[in-house]
Amino acid sequence: MTDRVVVVGGGFGGLNAVRALDGADVEVTVVDRTNHHLFQPLLYQVATGILPPGLIAPALRSVIKKQRNARALLADVYDLDLDAKVVRAHGPDGRPVELPYDTLIVAAGASHSYFGNDHFAEFAPGMKTIEDARYLRDGILSKFEMAEIATDPQERAEWLTFVVIGAGPTGVELVGQIAELAHVVLPRDYRTVDTHEARIILLEGASAVLPPFAPKLQAYTQRKLEKEGVEVRLNTLAVDMDHESITVKGPDGPETIRARTRIWAAGVQASPLARMLADKTGAQTDRAGRIPVNPDCSLPGHPEVFAVGDMVSLNGLPGVAQPAMQEGKYVGKVIRDRIAGKTAEPFAYFDKGTMATIGYRSAVADAFGVKVTGLIAYAMWAFIHVLYLVGWGNRLGTLYTWARGIWFGHNRAHRIITFETARDELAEGRTASGRPAPIMPPPR
Amino acid sequence: MTDRVVVVGGGFGGLNAVRALDGADVEVTVVDRTNHHLFQPLLYQVATGILPPGLIAPALRSVIKKQRNARALLADVYDLDLDAKVVRAHGPDGRPVELPYDTLIVAAGASHSYFGNDHFAEFAPGMKTIEDARYLRDGILSKFEMAEIATDPQERAEWLTFVVIGAGPTGVELVGQIAELAHVVLPRDYRTVDTHEARIILLEGASAVLPPFAPKLQAYTQRKLEKEGVEVRLNTLAVDMDHESITVKGPDGPETIRARTRIWAAGVQASPLARMLADKTGAQTDRAGRIPVNPDCSLPGHPEVFAVGDMVSLNGLPGVAQPAMQEGKYVGKVIRDRIAGKTAEPFAYFDKGTMATIGYRSAVADAFGVKVTGLIAYAMWAFIHVLYLVGWGNRLGTLYTWARGIWFGHNRAHRIITFETARDELAEGRTASGRPAPIMPPPR
Repeated sequence: MTDRVVVVGGGFGGLNAVRALDGADVEVTVVDRTNHHLFQPLLYQVATGILPPGLIAPALRSVIKKQRNARALLADVYDLDLDAKVVRAHGPDGRPVELPYDTLIVAAGASHSYFGNDHFAEFAPGMKTIEDARYLRDGILSKFEMAEIATDPQERAEWLTFVVIGAGPTGVELVGQIAELAHVVLPRDYRTVDTHEARIILLEGASAVLPPFAPKLQAYTQRKLEKEGVEVRLNTLAVDMDHESITVKGPDGPETIRARTRIWAAGVQASPLARMLADKTGAQTDRAGRIPVNPDCSLPGHPEVFAVGDMVSLNGLPGVAQPAMQEGKYVGKVIRDRIAGKTAEPFAYFDKGTMATIGYRSAVADAFGVKVTGLIAYAMWAFIHVLYLVGWGNRLGTLYTWARGIWFGHNRAHRIITFETARDELAEGRTASGRPAPIMPPPR
Repeated sequence: MTDRVVVVGGGFGGLNAVRALDGADVEVTVVDRTNHHLFQPLLYQVATGILPPGLIAPALRSVIKKQRNARALLADVYDLDLDAKVVRAHGPDGRPVELPYDTLIVAAGASHSYFGNDHFAEFAPGMKTIEDARYLRDGILSKFEMAEIATDPQERAEWLTFVVIGAGPTGVELVGQIAELAHVVLPRDYRTVDTHEARIILLEGASAVLPPFAPKLQAYTQRKLEKEGVEVRLNTLAVDMDHESITVKGPDGPETIRARTRIWAAGVQASPLARMLADKTGAQTDRAGRIPVNPDCSLPGHPEVFAVGDMVSLNGLPGVAQPAMQEGKYVGKVIRDRIAGKTAEPFAYFDKGTMATIGYRSAVADAFGVKVTGLIAYAMWAFIHVLYLVGWGNRLGTLYTWARGIWFGHNRAHRIITFETARDELAEGRTASGRPAPIMPPPR
């Protein structure tokens, strides 16, 4: 009988596992909470109005439509029953969906971690999904609109103060784009407010930006950000916040900064499914909630269950795209080998290096021992990211959208907000991942 | 002293008025509930996953950035004080915004009309804004996802039944694209369900589709729609509906159709600001809530107040883009003439004709006495609509997006939904223009 393979999650790990099973004698079902495969490394460009979501989030079932042994389902997985070998999920209307499997691949990724300060979620949204990115875009653009109608200079300054918490690649890329918006893109669009006056702050708890990068690249990135008008504060932690301010603690002691926008880019936490798998197999998750796996990505005692990507800890690999992609592809091969009666080699990671953009056509890259900065690194970054996008239509569309942005004076085409989105964004009590809090309409 | 001109609404009428005042000795403020100028004739392509919203909705302040005498504000106008000559609005956070004017141009457009059946809004959303279009897209795409996980054939058929109410251009264009989705684009993407089985129904109360068009074009349109698999029901009214069905009354008496999707394209109602202006000037609005204006688009007794576009009734012109654009441009010229001490000619409409697409690369067009159908009409339609889009970046982007769709087997790039959007869409009590109703998460 044809083996049933269920894949939980259609991100980098899941999609690569599905693709590696193309043509194999298996029936693959990939189940995801969204209908799309998200290319997370470009998500910050959606959050800052550069790209439309569709170019980095093709419909998953469209991506795999030519693979006849694979199908996609939109459902929310809440239980992995390793004894009965069944994945349990809910459809969008709450109906139960049961997926029996012979082989299970769990690739459920990670979300933000507030390091125990979960109430920060209300004041400092993070960015992991298309909805998060749209919410950040609404939030960032609304603040400039508010600054334009504000009459009090002190209040206007608060609308124009943006604090990004965490100087990993995501934080650096986001803060660089916010600086470009405020200092390059938007000044010509506003009449009352001078968006050059925007204050853009990057907080980092460690002693350098981009902590895992080489010191030379760290120094370049910091210099470049400061040149673009970003205040970089190292050895500084966010200790408290509310809707209008953030309190930080750095080398000079605590300080409260009045800022209407705070964005969280400081930490990630594995999917709760990692913890569920750990509980069911007697394993221990690490500090980031990740589950340890065998050298072949299977779970101890469950050779038929694999876990890959951001939710696993394996050989100290970071939670970025490359390990997830390679692990997904590897697990697909392990399953094919097993069908063929072969024994699989342990997973071996091929390090292709690491890179990050820094605002206006600049980047740092560290690959195969070579460290590159500036426009050359930016060109490398652009080439590689377009290459890894799914589908030629999206690759060309992304290149076109970048080119038109540069051609038309660094404008950004995807800047849609409405009165309602701005109002909701400004309403207290809404969180990025949660639903908008019900609020009263303005008085009539 | 430089005249202050306030323009309420940044649609076709408002934007053309603003542009016609470029270089004049006036200070123009355009105030809108959204931050963008919406190109409504392509909105149905956003609702069906063809175009991203950004290409048809550039930021208004970006569109007018080179016009130094104009500025844009994001606010919701609730009062036009003709005595004090002040426009009163709310900012997104509810703060009062007061805009004194010397000359006022009201171009606030129209929204759906349910002809007194306002409770239909909950069951049959309409399409006037980007948010409406996104909501329709979520709704249409979610139904196919639900059909894929439904196990009961009867239930699956209900998920795959789509009813569009009203066969004007908007209804015809929407129903044609839904048919193309179900019968051309999606069949390869689904494994369990055969989306060819989708039942797509177009209701029209009159005795022909596209009521204002020539009989020859009406007949062509109906034939073409039926060939594409659309059930066209003429002389048929929607008399009742709920979340799972719609009751219609046609020549064969009443019938209840089980259908999970109903879309309203049957009527429009002028902005409530038309009624407000009528009440304040002693005028009478017509059945569609539109206010009559003088031959120069000014209000009786208020030469300093103009109204243009879908919210006015003038010479029997229809509520489409061309009259609004021409009236806006004309009013800009009237104001310039007054500054120059000249008397303006009355508004004269130049009829450029009318056209509508019918699904898969077919259209009907009626211009300057010539009636065209099929691919040629479609090419005319595409040329003219791209021409009227604002900005070369959006024109080329739209052409590219269409070309890639055709090249990649009529795929659609902008099909994003998530578990939450599908869940919310399926939740009873949410309306397109209202906020999502708070619902319980599925049981855990």
